[in-house]
Amino acid sequence: MRRLASASTTPTPRPRDGYFFEDYQVGQHFHHATPRTITAGDVALYIALTGARQPTHCAATVATAIGFRDTPIDDMLHFHIAFGKTVADISYNAVANLGYADCRFLRPVFIGDTIRCETEIVGLKQNSSGKTGVVYVRSNASNQHDENVLTWVRWVMVHRREASISATKPEGQTEFAATIDDSAIHAPRIRNASDAMYNATGSTLFWDDIEATGKMLIRHPGGMTIEESDHMLATRLYQNTARVHFDLHHMKNSRFGQRLIYGGHVMSICRALAYDGLENVLSVAAIEAGSHTNPTFAGDTIYATSHLMSKGAINDDVGAIRIKLNGYKNVDIEKDTLTESNQVLSLSMIALMPRKK
Amino acid sequence: MRRLASASTTPTPRPRDGYFFEDYQVGQHFHHATPRTITAGDVALYIALTGARQPTHCAATVATAIGFRDTPIDDMLHFHIAFGKTVADISYNAVANLGYADCRFLRPVFIGDTIRCETEIVGLKQNSSGKTGVVYVRSNASNQHDENVLTWVRWVMVHRREASISATKPEGQTEFAATIDDSAIHAPRIRNASDAMYNATGSTLFWDDIEATGKMLIRHPGGMTIEESDHMLATRLYQNTARVHFDLHHMKNSRFGQRLIYGGHVMSICRALAYDGLENVLSVAAIEAGSHTNPTFAGDTIYATSHLMSKGAINDDVGAIRIKLNGYKNVDIEKDTLTESNQVLSLSMIALMPRKK
Amino acid sequence: MRRLASASTTPTPRPRDGYFFEDYQVGQHFHHATPRTITAGDVALYIALTGARQPTHCAATVATAIGFRDTPIDDMLHFHIAFGKTVADISYNAVANLGYADCRFLRPVFIGDTIRCETEIVGLKQNSSGKTGVVYVRSNASNQHDENVLTWVRWVMVHRREASISATKPEGQTEFAATIDDSAIHAPRIRNASDAMYNATGSTLFWDDIEATGKMLIRHPGGMTIEESDHMLATRLYQNTARVHFDLHHMKNSRFGQRLIYGGHVMSICRALAYDGLENVLSVAAIEAGSHTNPTFAGDTIYATSHLMSKGAINDDVGAIRIKLNGYKNVDIEKDTLTESNQVLSLSMIALMPRKK
Repeated sequence: MRRLASASTTPTPRPRDGYFFEDYQVGQHFHHATPRTITAGDVALYIALTGARQPTHCAATVATAIGFRDTPIDDMLHFHIAFGKTVADISYNAVANLGYADCRFLRPVFIGDTIRCETEIVGLKQNSSGKTGVVYVRSNASNQHDENVLTWVRWVMVHRREASISATKPEGQTEFAATIDDSAIHAPRIRNASDAMYNATGSTLFWDDIEATGKMLIRHPGGMTIEESDHMLATRLYQNTARVHFDLHHMKNSRFGQRLIYGGHVMSICRALAYDGLENVLSVAAIEAGSHTNPTFAGDTIYATSHLMSKGAINDDVGAIRIKLNGYKNVDIEKDTLTESNQVLSLSMIALMPRKK
Repeated sequence: MRRLASASTTPTPRPRDGYFFEDYQVGQHFHHATPRTITAGDVALYIALTGARQPTHCAATVATAIGFRDTPIDDMLHFHIAFGKTVADISYNAVANLGYADCRFLRPVFIGDTIRCETEIVGLKQNSSGKTGVVYVRSNASNQHDENVLTWVRWVMVHRREASISATKPEGQTEFAATIDDSAIHAPRIRNASDAMYNATGSTLFWDDIEATGKMLIRHPGGMTIEESDHMLATRLYQNTARVHFDLHHMKNSRFGQRLIYGGHVMSICRALAYDGLENVLSVAAIEAGSHTNPTFAGDTIYATSHLMSKGAINDDVGAIRIKLNGYKNVDIEKDTLTESNQVLSLSMIALMPRKK
Repeated sequence: MRRLASASTTPTPRPRDGYFFEDYQVGQHFHHATPRTITAGDVALYIALTGARQPTHCAATVATAIGFRDTPIDDMLHFHIAFGKTVADISYNAVANLGYADCRFLRPVFIGDTIRCETEIVGLKQNSSGKTGVVYVRSNASNQHDENVLTWVRWVMVHRREASISATKPEGQTEFAATIDDSAIHAPRIRNASDAMYNATGSTLFWDDIEATGKMLIRHPGGMTIEESDHMLATRLYQNTARVHFDLHHMKNSRFGQRLIYGGHVMSICRALAYDGLENVLSVAAIEAGSHTNPTFAGDTIYATSHLMSKGAINDDVGAIRIKLNGYKNVDIEKDTLTESNQVLSLSMIALMPRKK
């Protein structure tokens, strides 16, 4: 634990208007405020906000039958709460959240766990305009036992406080692998999962049955319209304070003229829609790459598709499926040709599925 | 527990676009996905979504004083979670939910209980248009101890996948009694309830005082306007996936031009409004009959009335009151003549009230 | 516990349309319906509705490290649930909630506690119009151990059932001190709080550092737009039934033409916004005075400022800061001159902060 006494000798408090591009240095380390204990209320709200139906996260009977000591919270809820912690220090003055890489879920999180988060600046690249720059960061979330539960890289375009006239060279690491090895994936120790999952979902589609060659495309049948209240409730639940999501009076003067929906809420909606067709997914083990390809606004209706790209056996009980989960808005998901102009999410995720016994 | 191995030999997976009228057969049985553990979060959200105030469900001191081992969840929350499970298999392609019968609450549900649900097709009747048919089903919800906690019949108008040219005869059971005998009602074993309830609610009106002759009409004083976020949060909480409630882009092309509010949310709003005037209701024991007489849309304001129809003594401690709970929208509930054109709900419920000692 | 038997001999039931000014007498006592058990769901919803981030209330690791036996719920959540109980009896026919005084938080409230509330009429003052009067009340909330957890005074303008032609003199107490002595403040027994709070928030600003002379003004950087669903969810969560917040059909004919947002929700939003700049506040110990200076409607964006007025040492571990927390709507909080015309809240609160060791 850090001590106030030592802090007082190195007073570098957060600027009241947040950090700008020129405030960051490669190697700089942030302990983010404020730890957060996960409750049964978070879990219920997550279901109410997204419609999530994965039995691992909503049915204690299933979770314990397959070997969890309790019901683990949804991986995306876990991600958003950890991510929310980083916003005040990393993306308070963000123009856009550009991408994600090497996001790995290292341990399940249960009700009662307290999550805290730290971030290191790993790369910096000023844009040629001189008005903005890209900040590359590695964030790590830990539980109350100081066990690392989640790690991820993201890069964010951040305003400069003052425009720069001199060009600068990129510093640190600004390129990241777009893939994650099977060996880096943490799979929970589970057992008898195929029977328990079949019993819970009724779906007979398991890891063994999936032809993951990139050719199989699932157009998930549901659609979800997002209202202002919905995304603000979600984003406040995650204690994410980015102004763009909440402050209409301010955003009226932005180029959007309205509030932007937190991209993570769109991820969660797509993840929940993807239940239909991939019912036996146990959990998300990793996100290899991700980007919010277009902004989402209140009133938009979100749809999702899954490309099954490849698969690998993790152990005797569990296999991994690489899924390209795309989000689209305001389309006919059954019939339309899906183009980038309507795409709001591109997410390369690694999902875990039981292997048949 | 069903085994995947046996399932694999009889692969009849759910169609990706859901079941249509011609897919159903009398006697067909559905194990619905996915079990759901009730949490303290569900209970708080139910209060936030409806304004429910019955002390049995919001005050542990009252619930335990009258003999419950813990605070039972609101019967309507219980109903909606069980109902939600059935939607993907039964009413995914529904035109309308036409009616309910013989709905009985068989055991209280507590936080931590996991609810799963099964349905049997009991009757089928094709409509003369050849485009739709009515499916009659009996659903049963169970807890983690395989105890039946709720049973109900409903009938739903469902689209045919393809219009039929040949008329068919009704099959199975398509008529249901509109009443439930006192002997079929399950009342929790409670004690000293009149003092505890009086102390909690301040109301001196108990079973003994009520003249239930059908002539007494209570116009409940409150009104509740429903927003899009409200009903979608509720309906997602129940993991009900019916497209009509969520998908504005799709519904713009429907005859309504907008999303429909889940009728069960209207039931819950009416039930919560009915607290004022019937404060000492312990719980809902049964629903004899029910129908959504008109659709409800976001922006509508809901009001409720109760006709006290008849009463019966269940045991020394508890009596039953048959209440016709009607819901209306956008009326002056104090002064207007209430007509069917503004009615949105007709629900014949059997409520339990303490008897005075 | 009150007994129904004795109640039956003195039947003074609540009028179905609520109490009006002429129904109140000085000394009259109300046991409000209905007790409410606080759950983990309430805590999560409070975060989702307000964005609250104080570690005392959202991080079990911090709360227990500084000496709480568990995580105390947010003081404002505590206040709203207690306040909500009083509405049906005190402000159901209110024109406006005029002011608060001597509000003191006497004991922390934890998940599982059941709150009930009682009110005594302490003063009455008819307005010269003869159409309304001001009712002055003292309310007390207790937990399941009959320990007083919260006390406060408020005064409310209430409609007369029938206009009065004769002037009447004020009765009882109609003036209240605008300050609370340090000696009347209840501070929880905590220890090592400065290190634990610094570690959780990263802020080095503690009681010792604050110059509370009334000259220091913090313009908190965030802004929060309130939607209809947001304030209704919050207000229903508190089981507050005031018609003005919920019934659009009725409010269309009011002078506002729309629903009014519960002033307490605005308090909570301002309190949450005030985290940025006053991160190390442990809890709110008291509210010396408060008023809702203008109504707030859906679509308004709320901002907050804090004037640090004075401070006092409560014990070796904790100090009190008197803060004037103002709320404004639809302003540029960084640059605008803040005037009463845009002000929605004026709250004189006493916050507790750790002293440095």
